[in-house]
Amino acid sequence: MKLKNLVGDRFKERPSDCVIESHALSVRGGYVKYVANGIYSLYPPMKRVTAKIENIIRQEMDSADCQEVLFPVVLPGALWEESGRFTSVGEELLRFKDRNDSSMVLGMTHEEAAVQLVREYGQTYAKYPFAIYQIQTKFRDEARPRAGLIRVREFTMKDAYSFHTSQEDLEKYYDVMANSYDRIFAKAGIPEVVSVKSDSGMIGGSVSHEYMLLVDAGEDSIVLCDDCGYSANMEAADTTVDNSGCAPAGELTKVLTPECKTIEDVCAFLKSPVAESCKAVIYQKNLTDEYVVVFLRGDYEVNETKLTNYLGEKVHPAVVTEDCGLVAGFCGPYNQNANCQIIYDSSLKGIENLCCGANEENYHYTGLNIKRDIGDVEYVDVSKIQNGGICPCCGKKTIRISRGIEVGNIFQLGTKYSASMGMTYTDEDGSSKTPIMGCYGIGVGRLAASVMEAKHDDFGPIWPISIAPWQVHLCCMRVDKEDCKAASDKIYNDLQNAGVEVIYDDRKVRAGAMFADADLLGVPVRITVGPKHLANGQVELSTRDKRVSRLVNIDEIQTEVNALIAELFAEINAKVPAKKESGWD
Amino acid sequence: MKLKNLVGDRFKERPSDCVIESHALSVRGGYVKYVANGIYSLYPPMKRVTAKIENIIRQEMDSADCQEVLFPVVLPGALWEESGRFTSVGEELLRFKDRNDSSMVLGMTHEEAAVQLVREYGQTYAKYPFAIYQIQTKFRDEARPRAGLIRVREFTMKDAYSFHTSQEDLEKYYDVMANSYDRIFAKAGIPEVVSVKSDSGMIGGSVSHEYMLLVDAGEDSIVLCDDCGYSANMEAADTTVDNSGCAPAGELTKVLTPECKTIEDVCAFLKSPVAESCKAVIYQKNLTDEYVVVFLRGDYEVNETKLTNYLGEKVHPAVVTEDCGLVAGFCGPYNQNANCQIIYDSSLKGIENLCCGANEENYHYTGLNIKRDIGDVEYVDVSKIQNGGICPCCGKKTIRISRGIEVGNIFQLGTKYSASMGMTYTDEDGSSKTPIMGCYGIGVGRLAASVMEAKHDDFGPIWPISIAPWQVHLCCMRVDKEDCKAASDKIYNDLQNAGVEVIYDDRKVRAGAMFADADLLGVPVRITVGPKHLANGQVELSTRDKRVSRLVNIDEIQTEVNALIAELFAEINAKVPAKKESGWD
Repeated sequence: MKLKNLVGDRFKERPSDCVIESHALSVRGGYVKYVANGIYSLYPPMKRVTAKIENIIRQEMDSADCQEVLFPVVLPGALWEESGRFTSVGEELLRFKDRNDSSMVLGMTHEEAAVQLVREYGQTYAKYPFAIYQIQTKFRDEARPRAGLIRVREFTMKDAYSFHTSQEDLEKYYDVMANSYDRIFAKAGIPEVVSVKSDSGMIGGSVSHEYMLLVDAGEDSIVLCDDCGYSANMEAADTTVDNSGCAPAGELTKVLTPECKTIEDVCAFLKSPVAESCKAVIYQKNLTDEYVVVFLRGDYEVNETKLTNYLGEKVHPAVVTEDCGLVAGFCGPYNQNANCQIIYDSSLKGIENLCCGANEENYHYTGLNIKRDIGDVEYVDVSKIQNGGICPCCGKKTIRISRGIEVGNIFQLGTKYSASMGMTYTDEDGSSKTPIMGCYGIGVGRLAASVMEAKHDDFGPIWPISIAPWQVHLCCMRVDKEDCKAASDKIYNDLQNAGVEVIYDDRKVRAGAMFADADLLGVPVRITVGPKHLANGQVELSTRDKRVSRLVNIDEIQTEVNALIAELFAEINAKVPAKKESGWD
Repeated sequence: MKLKNLVGDRFKERPSDCVIESHALSVRGGYVKYVANGIYSLYPPMKRVTAKIENIIRQEMDSADCQEVLFPVVLPGALWEESGRFTSVGEELLRFKDRNDSSMVLGMTHEEAAVQLVREYGQTYAKYPFAIYQIQTKFRDEARPRAGLIRVREFTMKDAYSFHTSQEDLEKYYDVMANSYDRIFAKAGIPEVVSVKSDSGMIGGSVSHEYMLLVDAGEDSIVLCDDCGYSANMEAADTTVDNSGCAPAGELTKVLTPECKTIEDVCAFLKSPVAESCKAVIYQKNLTDEYVVVFLRGDYEVNETKLTNYLGEKVHPAVVTEDCGLVAGFCGPYNQNANCQIIYDSSLKGIENLCCGANEENYHYTGLNIKRDIGDVEYVDVSKIQNGGICPCCGKKTIRISRGIEVGNIFQLGTKYSASMGMTYTDEDGSSKTPIMGCYGIGVGRLAASVMEAKHDDFGPIWPISIAPWQVHLCCMRVDKEDCKAASDKIYNDLQNAGVEVIYDDRKVRAGAMFADADLLGVPVRITVGPKHLANGQVELSTRDKRVSRLVNIDEIQTEVNALIAELFAEINAKVPAKKESGWD
């Protein structure tokens, strides 16, 4: 197509309200249009990118024996009541009434719809295993949509659901899907995506993994071990602490620590190491306002998701009142008489000689030995793993914490939905059983934006050829010169006839404007037809990433372009892992 | 794929709650799953059909220089307030509040979103004309969803929007789109779809056409002239009445007509022709309850859409009270003193000697001559055209009224949305102007169901090869016999490797069950591998529509199948009209 006809504007100026580069480039390049908070329309270039991503996903799902279906966007509330999520999910589930006053929701994931679709089909063991997927619009009423297509309210998502008669069979297919995901991300040009163990959150289930693209602008923290390859998100990474070098037990002594409000102040005042102090972080339970005091090593932080998972309910930072019995800034485990739940984080385990609050204004204890002075306590892991910390897998101090964007996730759901929604099958022996499920998601628009975030320079995205809006960007530098125009037109027609996807710029604009637009569209292969080289029968062939820039005889351009496109595809395909078959007959 | 793995059940029994055949077959064949009133999930076979339809639509839109975009499903209410439709559209527009109490709607069409997307882009004449489309989920909160995928609440629709600087340019592109539509329906296997002039309704605009598939189960009435090719829907078909043979003027006489309540009773009692009588149909305006009396020829019916369009507001059948001044059953134009709006339908024009109500219980007039006795009145066409009536185009009495399903529509919108939403462009002469729009819709699921309605027998759909879920249905009749299984497996693998879409039934089931399933899936080409013919090295090659049924040597089956598929495609393509180019550079 001709660039002059392409619907959408491109801008030189960076929008001031964009915090991450992919958002800015999405707006500047005419990829997306803001419609409402977290809701965008897609202009043709982004629609072309997402269509290619969808096709890559479709190929991989189909070849993993996953069958494409379509679930509704609008679902009856009654279906979500069956699973219990109608009430358990928060305000991000958009609920409304239809004209007949029936309760409806906008689908944010489709576990309920998936079970409803196959509940009758899957009534006998002979039908198992099977898997279905859809690529469909979803809506999640996020409190704070941000970062362009990275965190939106409305999005297109591929969601797949598998059904099994044993945990073993689920795990086998989970591996097949994990392999499909590796292949999808590699085919989309981001083979560097890592799979990390994760907390299952609202979806439920036991084992789950997130696929993370490591970029500085990512909103998630990821725990990696460069030594053994361990990876997890912060919630799922077990914190291991080595307290073996700590001082031996001493005498419990109350000391005056005037004007010391933080644990760092106290340790500095007492000249004792922060790593041998015990600090308190106070929460309240959302439902009851009951106080929860977490004691942990002075240099660690609480991970609130771990804490929530342990408690089984949500908490918020406490409002410490005068009469609650807790002494803010001086709260400690010894002589703690307030009415509260006390949690000992495992970072304290093995420290013989602690400094801690004395539950009295301006006083701390030194020499606390928990076992001796308090007794046997249960240690729970509710703290954040640290950069340089101990890898829970290989035990070395090799933990690195990176930022990343979650581009996909896979869950071993177990029977959460099948059991609550009464899905059963008759097994070979005649007994009634509940199928075991897995679910597998990829956000299409977020993936597109993530690639943009990972692959760009100051001038625009650098699209991998597999998902680029076009393969070739053809610039006619002097449309007013007859030979230049004629040569460009011929290349355009020849390439189009050969099935190459070309965007052709035959506008009468300055070279700077022409190249700025080309950079913003980020098309991997560029052909520049200008009068100087054309006089020698040559045109310029280059790549958006600047690795290639050479002159080509005009009668060889089609061959050269085809070869270059093939080469770019080959580079991508070289990084796609071998296919793991489901082995389903 | 193997049939035994296909998700979804097939049923022998016709569901009792289905009023039309396509709905029954959609359920029986495992195509759709009911989720809520007017909301369905699609099983793999229907998803495959709709994906093929979407691709046909995409090809035609792309080649008509229409660019694919994506609008949101959830739109801000404020956008619909700009166009005025937030209040003007009834309850079918689903409105709700998001978590921040912002007013939102579910998109039922996307004129507002289209204008919002290109309002800045289209600020200068040089950008025109241009056109965009999407294929996306829509929601229309229908009061009475019915007939399976024919009239649903949630549906996938292709909607296109074009923008022009002159009515002439719009009309030119409107013809290009009309041609695209003819091509789409022909490619989908229903070249018999007719385009009919229609009333624009809620969408607005002046000229519009509906694409109608003529089937007995259709819910719309379509007016056709077999002589000149005229076509329109009932609302848009001008009623022409020939009163030239009527009796000459007589004397106005009041006559006693006891116990005659209907115009037929009166005419029978008076022995005068119904075609020379004037009946009254009484309505009330929805907003004010003001009475509206329509006088029309005794043998004609009021078309309420025509009446609404003339009045510019909606009406309902009247509740005639004692004190309203109207005498139910005896209402006539002469001596009519009630406080009401009177409308003379053009069916009365030219009748010199009418029988009509006398506005007095049990009395009628004979010999009414409207011009002589009442004066000059305005005649308005608010009646339904009749079967065998006069064609408004060629003037012959050749009108035939058929039933049909609307499978697409195209509208010349004019400036309804661009003007209300403040979209302007600077013209060549520097003046500010409002662009002229067209819009063009096709419901994907409804099209699939309509093809099923038009192409089926008692046993299932007969899919055109272009949109069939698979191209070939392979039946292995005796999977327990080694040679039969081996031969079938080989055919399956060979065809799959050659890129043919095969559904392979290698289940151990009775022949009857196997063929019943094959009929329900409606795949156009069938290969049956059975021991009897296999002993002679032959398999059976047939078509779902029974036109082909022959034995083929097993080593020639691949060639024969490819030839048959090509032939079926050729039959379809032969009916696709030549492409009309947009002529856009």
